[in-house]
Amino acid sequence: MIHITRRERFNAAHRLFREDYTDATNAEVFGKCSNPNWHGHNYELFVTVKGDINPETGFLINLKELSRLIREEVISKVDHKNINLEVDFMQGKLASTENLAVSIWEVLEQPIRKLNAALHCVKVTESENNYAEYFGK
Amino acid sequence: MIHITRRERFNAAHRLFREDYTDATNAEVFGKCSNPNWHGHNYELFVTVKGDINPETGFLINLKELSRLIREEVISKVDHKNINLEVDFMQGKLASTENLAVSIWEVLEQPIRKLNAALHCVKVTESENNYAEYFGK
Amino acid sequence: MIHITRRERFNAAHRLFREDYTDATNAEVFGKCSNPNWHGHNYELFVTVKGDINPETGFLINLKELSRLIREEVISKVDHKNINLEVDFMQGKLASTENLAVSIWEVLEQPIRKLNAALHCVKVTESENNYAEYFGK
Amino acid sequence: MIHITRRERFNAAHRLFREDYTDATNAEVFGKCSNPNWHGHNYELFVTVKGDINPETGFLINLKELSRLIREEVISKVDHKNINLEVDFMQGKLASTENLAVSIWEVLEQPIRKLNAALHCVKVTESENNYAEYFGK
Amino acid sequence: MIHITRRERFNAAHRLFREDYTDATNAEVFGKCSNPNWHGHNYELFVTVKGDINPETGFLINLKELSRLIREEVISKVDHKNINLEVDFMQGKLASTENLAVSIWEVLEQPIRKLNAALHCVKVTESENNYAEYFGK
Amino acid sequence: MIHITRRERFNAAHRLFREDYTDATNAEVFGKCSNPNWHGHNYELFVTVKGDINPETGFLINLKELSRLIREEVISKVDHKNINLEVDFMQGKLASTENLAVSIWEVLEQPIRKLNAALHCVKVTESENNYAEYFGK
Repeated sequence: MIHITRRERFNAAHRLFREDYTDATNAEVFGKCSNPNWHGHNYELFVTVKGDINPETGFLINLKELSRLIREEVISKVDHKNINLEVDFMQGKLASTENLAVSIWEVLEQPIRKLNAALHCVKVTESENNYAEYFGK
Repeated sequence: MIHITRRERFNAAHRLFREDYTDATNAEVFGKCSNPNWHGHNYELFVTVKGDINPETGFLINLKELSRLIREEVISKVDHKNINLEVDFMQGKLASTENLAVSIWEVLEQPIRKLNAALHCVKVTESENNYAEYFGK
Repeated sequence: MIHITRRERFNAAHRLFREDYTDATNAEVFGKCSNPNWHGHNYELFVTVKGDINPETGFLINLKELSRLIREEVISKVDHKNINLEVDFMQGKLASTENLAVSIWEVLEQPIRKLNAALHCVKVTESENNYAEYFGK
Repeated sequence: MIHITRRERFNAAHRLFREDYTDATNAEVFGKCSNPNWHGHNYELFVTVKGDINPETGFLINLKELSRLIREEVISKVDHKNINLEVDFMQGKLASTENLAVSIWEVLEQPIRKLNAALHCVKVTESENNYAEYFGK
Repeated sequence: MIHITRRERFNAAHRLFREDYTDATNAEVFGKCSNPNWHGHNYELFVTVKGDINPETGFLINLKELSRLIREEVISKVDHKNINLEVDFMQGKLASTENLAVSIWEVLEQPIRKLNAALHCVKVTESENNYAEYFGK
Repeated sequence: MIHITRRERFNAAHRLFREDYTDATNAEVFGKCSNPNWHGHNYELFVTVKGDINPETGFLINLKELSRLIREEVISKVDHKNINLEVDFMQGKLASTENLAVSIWEVLEQPIRKLNAALHCVKVTESENNYAEYFGK
């Protein structure tokens, strides 16, 4: 069993807020992150997969294929986008780093299985000081 | 003559576009950066000042004072903000990294002079691959 | 179950030595790190907590609260301090990175529980080449 | 139980290919990495060991000894070398990051045991976007 | 006048040696870097251009165009290549970081002029500890 | 004319204070940095030299020689040391980053001249947010 990780990046706008909260409550709970005019981040996404090394190639998984998969399924949908308004897999969810990690896991789990590997961890870095990791249920 | 640099950071949303362009022209000129729903970045701001070392303190400038000045004059106005809609010193300007660097220079030049130092360079990093530097006229 | 990590930083002096060792033995065991005149580091502290996402906020834990907690309980006691002489939770212990990680765990475990989360890992980075991680007993 | 990690670095040339493949098949499977004239990387190697803190020293393991061990057993054999042609512990194996991680584990496991610690993880970083981790069987 | 910098990356093999030196002399002058079996690096290339901001776009230069230019003229020729054997603009030159910086300047100077900007600096980073910068004659 | 830069690192303790100030004044002027029990940093030192490329070697200067020179003249004197108490070239000076940069310049200027290169810049990084640069008189 080996683990291999691919990093991809995306730049996006978002806002943390609840429609059923008043502006004052949103400001109290979410602070500056609730700014109605949005703010944004350079997100880093680390996708770790696990499995056995294929003796024919020396690879657990071809990282070019993994990169293409992540770009098609995730990056193309979030890069230079508004996470709250435009990202299908985040609709109806709070645009937190935690929810991003879980939702990206849900998007990637099955497609990675088809590459004969298992998703191990989705890590989303929001700033140099903050990141969330999801290892599945 | 010595140079000293302070880094501060801010997270903001922005959009590159011209109101007098059609959506198609904005998309052609500015690409994904013209997304009407905004996107955002973790910006890094490096402010370099120059001058003589004060023999009394060993400092060109007290970096805590420089940091406080940058936070008051710049960071408080751009952090967790929408650069196009909310930042006074960017009104009427395209929200490019180049214009950010020039505008932050204009904001900081006089206040730094009052600290008995001269502004040497404003560097704005938009991503790990792109940055702009302005050294004044 | 999700994991979320907050990074905080501190600059401190320390020395690795035992009072019951001769200077020669201290030098042999601890090398340059036993210098009686101290040396120091820019430490990085990564605190990882785990638990369920609160569906009301999308957060496992509000990172601003976690940051404030770490600053109050740890950073305020170690930043710009001498670890051997001034840090209450390091008294009577060798000022190694390993002991720092364990001691910071002991300081943070209960307070984090009160924020309805569980401490998962304390990572202390002493240099770009060395770090210790403690996951509890 | 504590974990401690030492980073070492090496620069090496390599090539991904199989002698029993045609050039076309090598290009198809391994892409640019199969270039017959080689290419190379600045590899980073993170060696994580685990065990109990020695109360006499505050150390799990003396990092200077761990560093010397890694340099003797691994770095001296791979740094400024051609992984395919010159590295004894990679002979007969595809020079993938995955195989490097497993092979370095096999080289280090016994010697680290003699330092009264247990090898926990070998992580090999090939670029800022790719890394492999091996935790043993 | 503003400066803007684009980073691109490439992985390559190289060797420092002179054909008119004996192996012993090559080893004496170039050390491990003269290994006849090659070694390699993850190079980083920072291209800085200068000029006036175009008031129509807020750009000195469209970074997507600059990136495409650097990829076409430089990266496509050096990435996953052997600098000594395969890179046209390095033929007949020692494959040092200094010569790489000068040669990449010569490749990029004219094409950047056609984008209405002036090349200011080519910086080539060979490792986290070494880099060369060329500002033209 | 080419510029080449070598990075070296050192860990040291220091304190910012004046003996002719009261403790209260030291605290007011130098803040936490005046702690009588010291604090410390992982300093990074970037030494940039300039000159012509030697056509025989492709080098401005052999970086191994430059590294050895910096280690002998600077790193051996400051690494794991107390800058105020133990570093000969800092005696009688305030242990500020600015003074470190100037003093290291003074130490290195002549020896680098003997390697047929000219010192261009000494950059001392005290933390990820602060650095000083000295370019000579």
